[in-house]
Amino acid sequence: MSYTAVELIETKRDDGVLTEDAIAWLISGYTAGTVTDYQMSAMAMAIFLNGLNVDELAAWTEAMLHSGDVMDFGDIPAKKVDKHSTGGVGDKISIPLAPLVAACGVVVPMMSGRSLGHTGGTLDKLDSIPDFTTELDPVRFRTILGEHGLVLAGASETIVPADRKLYSLRDATGTVPSIPLISSSIMSKKLAEGIDGLVLDVKTGSGALMKSLEMSRELAETMVAVGKAHGVDTVAFITSMEQPLGKEVGNASEIKESVDVLVGRGPDDVTELTMVFGEAMLEMAGIEGGRATLEKAISTGAALEKLIEVTVAQGGDPSVLEDTSLLAKAGHEATVEAPRAGYVSTCDALVIGTVATRLGAGRQKMGDVIDPGVGITVEAKVGDEVSAGQPLARVRYTDEPGWDALRDRLASAWSIDEELVSPPRLVLERIE
Amino acid sequence: MSYTAVELIETKRDDGVLTEDAIAWLISGYTAGTVTDYQMSAMAMAIFLNGLNVDELAAWTEAMLHSGDVMDFGDIPAKKVDKHSTGGVGDKISIPLAPLVAACGVVVPMMSGRSLGHTGGTLDKLDSIPDFTTELDPVRFRTILGEHGLVLAGASETIVPADRKLYSLRDATGTVPSIPLISSSIMSKKLAEGIDGLVLDVKTGSGALMKSLEMSRELAETMVAVGKAHGVDTVAFITSMEQPLGKEVGNASEIKESVDVLVGRGPDDVTELTMVFGEAMLEMAGIEGGRATLEKAISTGAALEKLIEVTVAQGGDPSVLEDTSLLAKAGHEATVEAPRAGYVSTCDALVIGTVATRLGAGRQKMGDVIDPGVGITVEAKVGDEVSAGQPLARVRYTDEPGWDALRDRLASAWSIDEELVSPPRLVLERIE
Repeated sequence: MSYTAVELIETKRDDGVLTEDAIAWLISGYTAGTVTDYQMSAMAMAIFLNGLNVDELAAWTEAMLHSGDVMDFGDIPAKKVDKHSTGGVGDKISIPLAPLVAACGVVVPMMSGRSLGHTGGTLDKLDSIPDFTTELDPVRFRTILGEHGLVLAGASETIVPADRKLYSLRDATGTVPSIPLISSSIMSKKLAEGIDGLVLDVKTGSGALMKSLEMSRELAETMVAVGKAHGVDTVAFITSMEQPLGKEVGNASEIKESVDVLVGRGPDDVTELTMVFGEAMLEMAGIEGGRATLEKAISTGAALEKLIEVTVAQGGDPSVLEDTSLLAKAGHEATVEAPRAGYVSTCDALVIGTVATRLGAGRQKMGDVIDPGVGITVEAKVGDEVSAGQPLARVRYTDEPGWDALRDRLASAWSIDEELVSPPRLVLERIE
Repeated sequence: MSYTAVELIETKRDDGVLTEDAIAWLISGYTAGTVTDYQMSAMAMAIFLNGLNVDELAAWTEAMLHSGDVMDFGDIPAKKVDKHSTGGVGDKISIPLAPLVAACGVVVPMMSGRSLGHTGGTLDKLDSIPDFTTELDPVRFRTILGEHGLVLAGASETIVPADRKLYSLRDATGTVPSIPLISSSIMSKKLAEGIDGLVLDVKTGSGALMKSLEMSRELAETMVAVGKAHGVDTVAFITSMEQPLGKEVGNASEIKESVDVLVGRGPDDVTELTMVFGEAMLEMAGIEGGRATLEKAISTGAALEKLIEVTVAQGGDPSVLEDTSLLAKAGHEATVEAPRAGYVSTCDALVIGTVATRLGAGRQKMGDVIDPGVGITVEAKVGDEVSAGQPLARVRYTDEPGWDALRDRLASAWSIDEELVSPPRLVLERIE
């Protein structure tokens, strides 16, 4: 069938239903450039406001998935399992998690993204390891995965090219936080990885894309349904993103904290999430022993060894992993101190993430250059008792006037109460 | 204030209210190209679905109006009054109306548009007069208006350039039939003409942009409010567009029918609407005598003389007006006949307009070339009694296979009942 973009936009504008065939025509036309950006942005807004039903979403995801190459690792006998997070502040979980489960026998073809807005990106963090390359052509991707059971890379340009175009368009047209558009964007890329199982970490709270538990639950349920419909064992965890994960927010410092987790010295929250997701991934891969298996990989050094092994395979210098004091560190350091004694009741992830981005740890817009050495070490989190003048955060920066302009904003991230406040629960729901 | 397009799109997406300042920033950025087409189309869809309130619409119209030149004919002492139609099939009213009221002393700086879709365009009809130019620079426009009290032209590129861009964008993105966007598009262009009064003909029914009376009323009320807010005396008539206006649908043939009206031999419906609008325009201009004044201008020949006069001033050959048999006529003629005797109950304007367009009387897309000699003469309208085999329409065409493919479609425009059906009322409401 042949269509016009206008009639399909009108259908969705009037809250009608698009056929599978029409959606395939639209996405392939958009990828080829015959459907224009301005038509797709009108469609994206109509979808934002009128939604997609279950069948439309399945067709949309399928069309996105087939806009480019779909990987097939059928020749690698073990189960391929990946994990994806919707993005949070201090969320470095992928970096310890992938080598940990790979050390236990799970094959992990992990494709990650870069920082945009107030959240960091796994690829930017990996760039703190000198010479580590995340740009791998399909042949090298497959070779490394086959030899090491693990690869940590960006998506190649041939993977879901429709999403590459649509994601930038949505970013420029106020159509990002749409559940069907987020679901199809994430799931099409993950399904193109040729995986058997997928663990989704759907962040919820001030520092997340989805601010409410209800929206997060809807997104999680939608993505799990899409995954299952495509024959991929999918489980989602809704996890709290009110305060940063771990102590470190920054690129090089998050590599350090990841190594800490891999040697059993990581902060409780990062370690706990790594274990929860790791157990789910082992289960999907049919590997027994659960948490004990993961703990053994840490205590024997196998987990860190796997990260070092893949670092070498991807051209990186592993010495910064063996001695994390060699990682980049910005020249200046400052502290933010508690104005009075009490208990920390808020440690706002959005504020801390935004300040870290402005210091140079992330991108405000595409093309911004990241400074791996800047960052914030969070010294006091919700529930912690502090005395007056005790450091709440240590900040590493390069630009003095830049930091001066951000100091008060960063300090506003903390509230201190007289009464003890319990920290938020880390894992709120498991959806499968 | 400085804004980003994304934040303004998000505001409207979330059904918020845009400030006057924000709207001015957006429209001027769009005109200059710093706000992109894909951002504006997302905004147009958000406006389509969430609307604009009264203040937003006023600000939007004002910003469009000031995106380019605003004419000022303050040096011409008489009242300047124009008429605008939302577009219909066989709607040639502007062509007899403008010289008729100009002959009575109203100054008419008429700027019209071209055909797109199933409706005709005044400029295309005027093109059937050999050498008549509707492309006038501002100096010549003003000179002709000053000397003849009438000018029939297209809008220059410097008049509301924002609308020029936005109109094509809306056409390509399914965002045309939005009341605030239609209102601001029409009214910004009319307000830029520097007029004192405006008669609006809001068409309703199968052959109109607005299919329901309710939508037409909302559009009419919105435009009247915008006109009055800008100090322009504005009245709107909601008129029926279930069947074509008059007998002629085509470019040269509509010039012929316009001349018929100017010499007192026009079809009843075209003559009646011309009189109704003419009376309103005289009233706005403070010219007395109403319909009697108009009838006198016809009977004395002054009305046709005014059309001939402006034709000469705009470079046209007036001989086709003095002898309308000299107007272009396509080489082939066919008839569509009544399949049985009875009373015509439907004579569908949309079907007839669409077939006329496909025959070459209009444009299916921008850039299509118009054939002035093709057209349809409607021989039987709602309420007419017909015998079996009597012609319902005479068709002039150039392309034989093209016409063959359209014959059944054209025939489907008529329904014939056994019982007499009353023709629809022509003027449904007057809103001021």
